[in-house]
Amino acid sequence: MPYLVCVACGKRYPLDTALRCGNCDEPLEVHYDSLKPPARIKDDPCFVTRNTNVFPLPDLRPELSLGEGTTPLLRASNLQAETGLECVYLKNETVNPTWSFKDRGTSLGVQAAIWFGLKSIGTVSSGNMAASIAAFAARAGLEAYVFVQEGMPDGKIQPIAIYGPHLNRGIGDYGQLYFNALDLGEKHGIYFISSDNPFRVEGQKTVAYEILDQLDYEPLDFIFMPVSSGGNMAAVIKACEEMEALGLIKKAPMIIGVQAAGCSPIAKAVAEDKDQIEHFHNPNTMAHAISNPMPPSGNRILRKVKEGRANVITVTEEEILAAQAFLASQEGLFVQPAGAVPVAAVRRLAGESTLKPEHKIAAILTGSGLKDTSALAHHTLKAGAVPVTNLELALNK
Amino acid sequence: MPYLVCVACGKRYPLDTALRCGNCDEPLEVHYDSLKPPARIKDDPCFVTRNTNVFPLPDLRPELSLGEGTTPLLRASNLQAETGLECVYLKNETVNPTWSFKDRGTSLGVQAAIWFGLKSIGTVSSGNMAASIAAFAARAGLEAYVFVQEGMPDGKIQPIAIYGPHLNRGIGDYGQLYFNALDLGEKHGIYFISSDNPFRVEGQKTVAYEILDQLDYEPLDFIFMPVSSGGNMAAVIKACEEMEALGLIKKAPMIIGVQAAGCSPIAKAVAEDKDQIEHFHNPNTMAHAISNPMPPSGNRILRKVKEGRANVITVTEEEILAAQAFLASQEGLFVQPAGAVPVAAVRRLAGESTLKPEHKIAAILTGSGLKDTSALAHHTLKAGAVPVTNLELALNK
Repeated sequence: MPYLVCVACGKRYPLDTALRCGNCDEPLEVHYDSLKPPARIKDDPCFVTRNTNVFPLPDLRPELSLGEGTTPLLRASNLQAETGLECVYLKNETVNPTWSFKDRGTSLGVQAAIWFGLKSIGTVSSGNMAASIAAFAARAGLEAYVFVQEGMPDGKIQPIAIYGPHLNRGIGDYGQLYFNALDLGEKHGIYFISSDNPFRVEGQKTVAYEILDQLDYEPLDFIFMPVSSGGNMAAVIKACEEMEALGLIKKAPMIIGVQAAGCSPIAKAVAEDKDQIEHFHNPNTMAHAISNPMPPSGNRILRKVKEGRANVITVTEEEILAAQAFLASQEGLFVQPAGAVPVAAVRRLAGESTLKPEHKIAAILTGSGLKDTSALAHHTLKAGAVPVTNLELALNK
Repeated sequence: MPYLVCVACGKRYPLDTALRCGNCDEPLEVHYDSLKPPARIKDDPCFVTRNTNVFPLPDLRPELSLGEGTTPLLRASNLQAETGLECVYLKNETVNPTWSFKDRGTSLGVQAAIWFGLKSIGTVSSGNMAASIAAFAARAGLEAYVFVQEGMPDGKIQPIAIYGPHLNRGIGDYGQLYFNALDLGEKHGIYFISSDNPFRVEGQKTVAYEILDQLDYEPLDFIFMPVSSGGNMAAVIKACEEMEALGLIKKAPMIIGVQAAGCSPIAKAVAEDKDQIEHFHNPNTMAHAISNPMPPSGNRILRKVKEGRANVITVTEEEILAAQAFLASQEGLFVQPAGAVPVAAVRRLAGESTLKPEHKIAAILTGSGLKDTSALAHHTLKAGAVPVTNLELALNK
């Protein structure tokens, strides 16, 4: 039977108890007595049944899947041409059922809630997580409780509200709310599937298994990805360690987490060689989906950096905008600003020759550009048109 | 070598000539001297290479794919429970690379443009088609010319503009523009990949091949889908006829095209037993993506109805809204209003017992709810929440 382990002190817990360690207040993660590889994508298209071997719960219900996962891995031909890198792949997580990577973790989180006998799930979020939780709850017949900030405009709420969750406006600081939600959930029987919930992490880790499966387990040197709470990055590191232990790959790729310089608590702690994340004051970035000033899995990422498994770096607002425009206008992929940060980092590091042409790289594009259009006004529309004189078309005025 | 045939008079044309018949002004479609089945999804995940056998062009370039197709086919458990139908599937086309079904047709359209030696592609559209054309052009290194209406708000233009097309504001009537665009394209060397372009249709038909592949070619009685220009519906009918001819299925499913009652030129002609579509005056529906008052492939659909291959019906605005809410809040799938019309029809016909419990049905959900949020204001947000007294959360005010 799998069990939970504190990522800091190693204390063991049964699967169905705490979400964070009673000693350390650090996140717990799932360990397995014996792990077997997941099925190959070609042998099983279903996210739930394909990954049963690397999921900790028995009696999974595949009919609750919304078709998450199995997202395309595209060769970034135009990015390669620009940077001189020979092999860059883009994992397009924007084509998940609610158009972000969150659906992988929510899928398993819902299975956990059902296994625990709970009828309600919840989240504190303004964006990707809220839509994902609400959608999977709808499919599974669970109640969803979504907590959003008081002033959120209707235009951002409606695409979440349509799934029919109980919407609660009027919360304050998101960082504090992560912890409040754990208490609230216990009191009201709501299973809060937060960013580094151990089951969410097990679901999120499938993105790395998929990337390597799609490459027939050919080695990668680096996986670049955005990092916010640290839960998704921890999941990708964990999957790569598992694949190494399983013998599926000889050596795990180095995972490069990328933050916006305007909200970069993990990168700051790495740069200053700290063991503990400190609250990042006055966060300011257009990459809203990764603007977390006090990441609950931050310390865990710092440990992985010290173990040589990972690194965390920053990119500027200008680099994010440029990467978003590059991805859309050169590769045909429109991602939200947070989804563009890994590519911003690849472009800079290739320019500085920190990345070598022969390095094999994958970048995870986490969410659709349609989910956060606020940055679009910063882009300049391409002017001009073919010279058209057709009278029915009053163009080029 | 495949060739083009007028869908009305049967006149043959080489692949690289006209887009409509010089005699009839009706659309042309691709015919094959000998057709072989496409590869199975499990054997080839790539849209382009998997479908080579059912595509008319040699030397396809799979690296131009954005990962279109291979979308999930989900059992609609909650729709089944509501309607008493035993077997309803939902084909979720909202998880294509630009979040609508259009990407299938654009993918092959771009291959055709390259095969013709053209450097530019174009479209007249305000929505799904514009984004799809702009994205695939970006990937392929082609220029894209997108013609939109003069008054279109920035909020709708930006998610298209980000792909870097040449944007032309200031067009008039969309129906007329379909024809103007063909002239314009010839004059300026722009390949307009319009709704019923023969290569677009060949790309679109893959959705039906995929549905049947995902069902291991188990028979279906009906496929429900939205119909606007008629091009996509003609594609699905064509694929089913091809699968029947190939012996992959014993009998093609009946294709049910669904229009909004507020813009239903094809359904009107069917109801009045006409051979020719008439211009639908004063169209008025929230399902903007299918609001085409003079569908260029309408007559072709009427012929298929007379052949017993298809039918076209309408749903009301109230039914569309209710279906959109049902899909999101019960199945976890948020579609644009146009994408909800097939489910609106299934719900009504099941309620009227026109559909029997034992009928096997698939419904195609064509585009993401994020692409047209204008209808969302009509939905009522779910009120209330868990009674929360936690002081940090000032809820339920």
